[in-house]
Amino acid sequence: MEKQSIGTNATICPMPVTLVGSMVNDRSNFMTVAFISRVNMNPPLISMGLNKQSATREAVFKHRTFSVNFPSAGMVAETDYCGIASGKTTDKSGLFKVFYGKSPYAPMISECPLSFECTVVETHEFATHTCFIGEIVATYLDSSCVTNGKPDPAKIDPLLLTMPDNQYWRIGKPVAQAWNAGKKVQKRS
Amino acid sequence: MEKQSIGTNATICPMPVTLVGSMVNDRSNFMTVAFISRVNMNPPLISMGLNKQSATREAVFKHRTFSVNFPSAGMVAETDYCGIASGKTTDKSGLFKVFYGKSPYAPMISECPLSFECTVVETHEFATHTCFIGEIVATYLDSSCVTNGKPDPAKIDPLLLTMPDNQYWRIGKPVAQAWNAGKKVQKRS
Repeated sequence: MEKQSIGTNATICPMPVTLVGSMVNDRSNFMTVAFISRVNMNPPLISMGLNKQSATREAVFKHRTFSVNFPSAGMVAETDYCGIASGKTTDKSGLFKVFYGKSPYAPMISECPLSFECTVVETHEFATHTCFIGEIVATYLDSSCVTNGKPDPAKIDPLLLTMPDNQYWRIGKPVAQAWNAGKKVQKRS
Repeated sequence: MEKQSIGTNATICPMPVTLVGSMVNDRSNFMTVAFISRVNMNPPLISMGLNKQSATREAVFKHRTFSVNFPSAGMVAETDYCGIASGKTTDKSGLFKVFYGKSPYAPMISECPLSFECTVVETHEFATHTCFIGEIVATYLDSSCVTNGKPDPAKIDPLLLTMPDNQYWRIGKPVAQAWNAGKKVQKRS
């Protein structure tokens, strides 16, 4: 394949779309975050990059706890709004029905099929973003999104984001089973 | 929605699937990695969690450079194989056609439509994984995967992974434009 260099204006393809919950000025606040992934298996740690200018960065830094909510594709307008409107100047507390788990500083979204409650383990400062390392301390799943006792991604119907085309996507068709599809290559080698 | 607690056995939904390239015993080696995301906007930094037992962790720690390659859905068998077979005991150097950019320690995969070349900025040790913070120093894209001068996700046709159901997925239909779909909520509020 002919390759072209596109500088460094590229990113992970695609990114998961989440709404990160925190308490800003004593009200529940949600910010759209796609710079997020697992980073350690056991204990379950995640890395999350938050813009240093965001109200969420300040709130998570202060309260050391936050939530990660996975909106379904039908929630795309509200999800995108949470990435446009800053919690510093906008009250987003009425957008969703909120519930709480262990901490009063980690509001979670009832309408989101899957939510994590997290505590901050480490913080690392970079030029434009703060990287929070969080531990998942509890997970809440809609009973309607369970198949064979596990979260069912097709029922969760999560959102993806690609950049720089700035497009939200749904997940598509299942392709193969992991830790299985490669066995035929193993035999061939 | 009725919620059920599912402990902490859950992860980001969905995760992007990548093949991380490094030099192991003087041969090109590729490992399947889904614990990866952007973590800082400018400069472009990524976080990547690698199992401490992996040959890739050792190689990236030593050479301070690596590649991130995005396989298309048609490469699912070879991609999964790179997550099953360890570079410690398996020579995976013949699986793909390899090319190099700036560094001789960051082999990249010609068959993958999109590849990043990265240098290590920081490392953080956790219980089971090492978190590498890498800077994207160059990006290579198949000329056939460009639309309007940008990487075209539908043409890249990347793989996603969900756990604990261990399913690979394709991306599906576009849903809406980011930083735009939320404007109608803004007006309503």
